[in-house]
Amino acid sequence: MRVGAKAGKAEMTFMERALIEGRKAASQGEVPVGCLIVDGNTGEVLARTANRTEELGDPTAHAEMLALSEATRSAGAKRLTECDLYVTLEPCPMCAQAISFARIRRLYFGAYDPKGGGVEHGPRIFSQPSSHHTPQIYGGLAETDCADLLTDFFEKRR
Amino acid sequence: MRVGAKAGKAEMTFMERALIEGRKAASQGEVPVGCLIVDGNTGEVLARTANRTEELGDPTAHAEMLALSEATRSAGAKRLTECDLYVTLEPCPMCAQAISFARIRRLYFGAYDPKGGGVEHGPRIFSQPSSHHTPQIYGGLAETDCADLLTDFFEKRR
Repeated sequence: MRVGAKAGKAEMTFMERALIEGRKAASQGEVPVGCLIVDGNTGEVLARTANRTEELGDPTAHAEMLALSEATRSAGAKRLTECDLYVTLEPCPMCAQAISFARIRRLYFGAYDPKGGGVEHGPRIFSQPSSHHTPQIYGGLAETDCADLLTDFFEKRR
Repeated sequence: MRVGAKAGKAEMTFMERALIEGRKAASQGEVPVGCLIVDGNTGEVLARTANRTEELGDPTAHAEMLALSEATRSAGAKRLTECDLYVTLEPCPMCAQAISFARIRRLYFGAYDPKGGGVEHGPRIFSQPSSHHTPQIYGGLAETDCADLLTDFFEKRR
């Protein structure tokens, strides 16, 4: 579901905090994607991460993967059934499958990623028989800001 | 490509070492999947891991993910273009996409996984437009031993 301007204030605030993480990453030369995992009942932030593939020299160090590891550690649980994940870019297939494993309740993402995305594009991971859990999905939250962050980053690098 | 009995001696030896990691994991109550990443030119083992989702309480801690992080750290490079990955079970979609990101040269796996696999089953990650690199794939290496390890583990838990 595309949320666009219909998103609530709390959801917008969480996505803005994910954007802040993304902007910090950009300033360090990382492809700017930021992520937040929030306890959906209390609003407590369990993880706040950005892409760190360059810093760690690890192609699996996407914002969502780092956030899921941090949040499960923080919650002391392998399943985050009451948690919501906010990320500035549509998750890739790796991260989408990880979100499924972690039993995330709601997935909010900002920009759509027709080339690398795995939620609304490519393998559409949650529609596959190998996915045993599908979160509620809300795409396009703060879409313009999230897309601009990436566009600006790649334009400056040219 | 299904290799079956046609595999070379070196490849069998590496898969047997992955099986050893898988067996150790079983003895610790982890779903037994073992993995090795090897420098394809020198034969040096860059990572030797097993599934640790229970121990770490982290659903992303699959053997292949841990191996890719360890091998990229060990190699000091984000891309493992000259490396081969051996794993006792067909990788899931998350791990398959991570293998693609890491530019692994050859992927050898043991047992096929019709329910959870993402290479020859489900989303067939390497055939997707979101996958920018496909390793050479050899399935069914030491297939019986690899499958038995999992079957025995789940039978004992019943």
